[in-house]
Amino acid sequence: MSPELARLGHVALETPNIDESAAFFRDAVGLEEVTRSDGTIYLRAVDEFDHHSMSLTEADSEGVDHIGWQTKTETGLSEFASQLEDQGIDITWIDAGEEAGQGKAIRFSTPTGNEFEFYHEMEKPDPPEERRSKLKNRTYSPTKTNPIAPSRIDHVQIWDPDANKFVEWLKETLGFRVHEYYDRRDGSRWGTWMSASETKIEAAIIDDEEQEKSPALHHVAYKVETANDLFDAKDAMNEEGYTTDGIGQHSISRGKFLYARDSATNHRIEFNSGSYLVFDPNWEPIAWQEGYLEDEDPPGSRQWVGQIESKERVFY
Amino acid sequence: MSPELARLGHVALETPNIDESAAFFRDAVGLEEVTRSDGTIYLRAVDEFDHHSMSLTEADSEGVDHIGWQTKTETGLSEFASQLEDQGIDITWIDAGEEAGQGKAIRFSTPTGNEFEFYHEMEKPDPPEERRSKLKNRTYSPTKTNPIAPSRIDHVQIWDPDANKFVEWLKETLGFRVHEYYDRRDGSRWGTWMSASETKIEAAIIDDEEQEKSPALHHVAYKVETANDLFDAKDAMNEEGYTTDGIGQHSISRGKFLYARDSATNHRIEFNSGSYLVFDPNWEPIAWQEGYLEDEDPPGSRQWVGQIESKERVFY
Amino acid sequence: MSPELARLGHVALETPNIDESAAFFRDAVGLEEVTRSDGTIYLRAVDEFDHHSMSLTEADSEGVDHIGWQTKTETGLSEFASQLEDQGIDITWIDAGEEAGQGKAIRFSTPTGNEFEFYHEMEKPDPPEERRSKLKNRTYSPTKTNPIAPSRIDHVQIWDPDANKFVEWLKETLGFRVHEYYDRRDGSRWGTWMSASETKIEAAIIDDEEQEKSPALHHVAYKVETANDLFDAKDAMNEEGYTTDGIGQHSISRGKFLYARDSATNHRIEFNSGSYLVFDPNWEPIAWQEGYLEDEDPPGSRQWVGQIESKERVFY
Amino acid sequence: MSPELARLGHVALETPNIDESAAFFRDAVGLEEVTRSDGTIYLRAVDEFDHHSMSLTEADSEGVDHIGWQTKTETGLSEFASQLEDQGIDITWIDAGEEAGQGKAIRFSTPTGNEFEFYHEMEKPDPPEERRSKLKNRTYSPTKTNPIAPSRIDHVQIWDPDANKFVEWLKETLGFRVHEYYDRRDGSRWGTWMSASETKIEAAIIDDEEQEKSPALHHVAYKVETANDLFDAKDAMNEEGYTTDGIGQHSISRGKFLYARDSATNHRIEFNSGSYLVFDPNWEPIAWQEGYLEDEDPPGSRQWVGQIESKERVFY
Repeated sequence: MSPELARLGHVALETPNIDESAAFFRDAVGLEEVTRSDGTIYLRAVDEFDHHSMSLTEADSEGVDHIGWQTKTETGLSEFASQLEDQGIDITWIDAGEEAGQGKAIRFSTPTGNEFEFYHEMEKPDPPEERRSKLKNRTYSPTKTNPIAPSRIDHVQIWDPDANKFVEWLKETLGFRVHEYYDRRDGSRWGTWMSASETKIEAAIIDDEEQEKSPALHHVAYKVETANDLFDAKDAMNEEGYTTDGIGQHSISRGKFLYARDSATNHRIEFNSGSYLVFDPNWEPIAWQEGYLEDEDPPGSRQWVGQIESKERVFY
Repeated sequence: MSPELARLGHVALETPNIDESAAFFRDAVGLEEVTRSDGTIYLRAVDEFDHHSMSLTEADSEGVDHIGWQTKTETGLSEFASQLEDQGIDITWIDAGEEAGQGKAIRFSTPTGNEFEFYHEMEKPDPPEERRSKLKNRTYSPTKTNPIAPSRIDHVQIWDPDANKFVEWLKETLGFRVHEYYDRRDGSRWGTWMSASETKIEAAIIDDEEQEKSPALHHVAYKVETANDLFDAKDAMNEEGYTTDGIGQHSISRGKFLYARDSATNHRIEFNSGSYLVFDPNWEPIAWQEGYLEDEDPPGSRQWVGQIESKERVFY
Repeated sequence: MSPELARLGHVALETPNIDESAAFFRDAVGLEEVTRSDGTIYLRAVDEFDHHSMSLTEADSEGVDHIGWQTKTETGLSEFASQLEDQGIDITWIDAGEEAGQGKAIRFSTPTGNEFEFYHEMEKPDPPEERRSKLKNRTYSPTKTNPIAPSRIDHVQIWDPDANKFVEWLKETLGFRVHEYYDRRDGSRWGTWMSASETKIEAAIIDDEEQEKSPALHHVAYKVETANDLFDAKDAMNEEGYTTDGIGQHSISRGKFLYARDSATNHRIEFNSGSYLVFDPNWEPIAWQEGYLEDEDPPGSRQWVGQIESKERVFY
Repeated sequence: MSPELARLGHVALETPNIDESAAFFRDAVGLEEVTRSDGTIYLRAVDEFDHHSMSLTEADSEGVDHIGWQTKTETGLSEFASQLEDQGIDITWIDAGEEAGQGKAIRFSTPTGNEFEFYHEMEKPDPPEERRSKLKNRTYSPTKTNPIAPSRIDHVQIWDPDANKFVEWLKETLGFRVHEYYDRRDGSRWGTWMSASETKIEAAIIDDEEQEKSPALHHVAYKVETANDLFDAKDAMNEEGYTTDGIGQHSISRGKFLYARDSATNHRIEFNSGSYLVFDPNWEPIAWQEGYLEDEDPPGSRQWVGQIESKERVFY
């Protein structure tokens, strides 16, 4: 029986200016700082029980240290390690606690160069008592957090010059399922929307036409409840002086979005609302073709197609 | 390896007046009539691809024929059948197509008397062309459907005089996970919120203190996007003259709700917004105790606790 | 030419525990403390430029010192004073600055005993620089205020044992217009919804059947944008431990509401969303009769009629 | 005493293809067709009691026949007529009923060439019984109308090559008040946001730099309740194949917007949410200068400034 992934867990980001990045993700976006150790700040969203869904580490330049995925079982770690080593992939074992709050983990580069971490155990620290919610099924009291704070991590978008190879590998080796894909007029694949958890889209893999070098993270998305929350987030970003892109709605995934960027690194966060869930084991991937909507539709419908204009991305 | 359930699929309701019940679920609530055959009307929500998530069948009196659950695999059907027969449960095999749009299925009574159906295959019929969405990842164009139409089935609430036995059986035999539970002051369990899909709460099992006879369906819940949608639904129910209960928000599940009832049967539908999802394989069930919120909080916070005043339920 | 009122300006409340009341209105509800002088705290909502829309003054017991109305012109003050004195009403002139931030004013008791203040000039102090919005057309940056903070004062509801006399006087002497009214089965009037500004309902005058003594303030309402904001406010009140009533929607005015109460005084604030505006000079008052909705409609529609269950009110 | 305007009443649009325009405004946008007479279709929004807030008349080409404003009194009509004639403006009297549902009216060209109509009386026809709301304070049952139907007319935006002269005339002759204005770096005025009703912005007057010919209508705005409603409207326009611009939020007026255009004429409708009201007789106009936000802010904040990219406008 194959090991299985449970879900997208966290992104570990690098920044040349950790204070400026923390000011963005914590003070402006409203992620909660859980702890700071060894030059790394660990953050989680206000509805998350797990120790962190993002970390910020000081480095020479901006970058992505790794993307963390939780396995369904603890034994899945060594099962995955063994499978990956069979493919010739080097595995680095990380001791429990080396990444704060986290159990034993493995790190490795995917065949196309994405830095991944697998882990199973994660501590669930209580918030400080004066900020804890009376409701037992959430973490922080919403009256004590940033008014625009998103609730939980949702997905990552990765741009990869060898996207097709990466997508096949995610399916074959890691068991990702495809929810939607988008083909160009010439038949080549532009993007694939996939899931480790099966239920929501957790990874959008985009063919990075302009980039020969290596894969990169385009954005990490967090969830908010309503479209008004997107406007409130945009408003807050404007008040605080951060760059935004959107508001709009993609045809693919039907996600309503606002993008905002850390001034220190260009790391991009998406505030995401709407979208849909897949509970159907017989889900047939949605097939989009370039021109399906654009040709017959007016330009105003572009946001339905969800081409993202802003191409900055941050490399591993 | 054990067979697994994928999700709550549908509820099959009985009504002494199918036209009046259809007027409620289809014309007022906004479920879509997919087909009518052999005296049964098959309905689905506007975001659903599968053939039906509800059926209405004429009968001598109101009732619940069965609650349908989809298995993860086709082979899961016979695996489950074999397991259940080992427990002494009688299995009835249903031919593909006997329930419109559905593949081969099994039906049986759970040890406490709930009527369940398991199936794997379900047709995904296109809507009529003039009502089909241009977006490939949804079914109906929202401009062509009822303004308050919910998007998809979410959960059922079952009242059972032998709730604890039922909950244990759901866990042990069917692999349900517990997300939350609520204990009375005397330590007895009042309710358990569980999931077949793991991600959302799909079944709330309530200890039916006042009812010795048999288990019953309290409500089936469908999803809407915002709290304003709950007000719009309440408004619509008032315009159409149907009984409602709510609007409010439960502490358990954090679901925002409106209940409305079919005048012919007292079958209750919940319009549900908010709530949370569980992607964590290490989720620790949320434990509530009677008095935790009520004692220290003002009466106005009752909606946070989510006691449902209206006790009508419909028996199998 | 008659003097004219411009709008409801503020309510001046009394409390035996100014710190506890301030904790409610400022820290929990999110009104902004503008200044504190001579034992009075002056508050405004986050979208208001004027100096205050509420004041809290320490007193032996809870009470309403006065309800403030702004005149359209400065000369309107002496014109109103002269008219009122012609009716035998005693006028007290208040010097500019006696009520902080306010110009010259008059105070008087209406014929049925409501304490009113008329003023024209009000300072528009800037918020502290670090909390000021970059947008010139609002006061505070929403990222710096309470997440649930309402935007502006909307209306007051007054219970008066001689409501009909009060309503007639508001129309004849002050030029209020009637937007809606509600008659009991016996033909007597239960409530009248009126406006000084013409545009929104600013005063609901309810016949106080149970109270022979004197008129009282049932609640003061402030505006929020969406129904989700009402849920967020309820959530915040629950977290902070304050009593609430609602959420619901009245048929009269179509206002969506949540009521919350200051623990020190029972002063009640309404969070209000929705409702409608009247720009039509030929508006015909909406006439409701007891039984119009209740008799033919199910109990669940009660919130449409807007009977307020909670009868606490605070006397002048 | 000067006559006074009450509010923006309606826009009378011309179209070379009345069926195509009606398909847009009535079937897609969801305005209600009240009556059709003499080649004109009269429409109102679902929350409006008055006979119409828009009319469509077949003509050789697209155009604006007139913009209608309601006077506060019937005598205001002849008082305005007399004032305007004193300025040398030609007045055309329109008999009651000539414009369906409307009382006696006057029409004239403003000094810069805008075609205006003043009227006081307007019929308030009941909707067809099967579509009438049970709530007496609204017109149509929301369950019977288009899911995205806006509630009421809000404002017009007029582009005028001689904007400053027009603005001064609106203030001096018609008593409009200025809520906000925007000056270019060279000190010239780009736009002025004004009101006849005082409460909301009813006319935005933009300096039409590129157009020497004559003034034109850029858009007419109707109100919706939430930001989700803007997304729903955009979604509907995409499904129906109409051109849109937005979604966004202007810094001026703080209005959240979506623009959509009639395919037959380029007449543009704005779906508007948010914004603010002015009840203050001492309101100080908000003064914006080019560069105040743009220079110091990132490009993403453009929507806060509200430059409208799409310059199509329709001439009188």
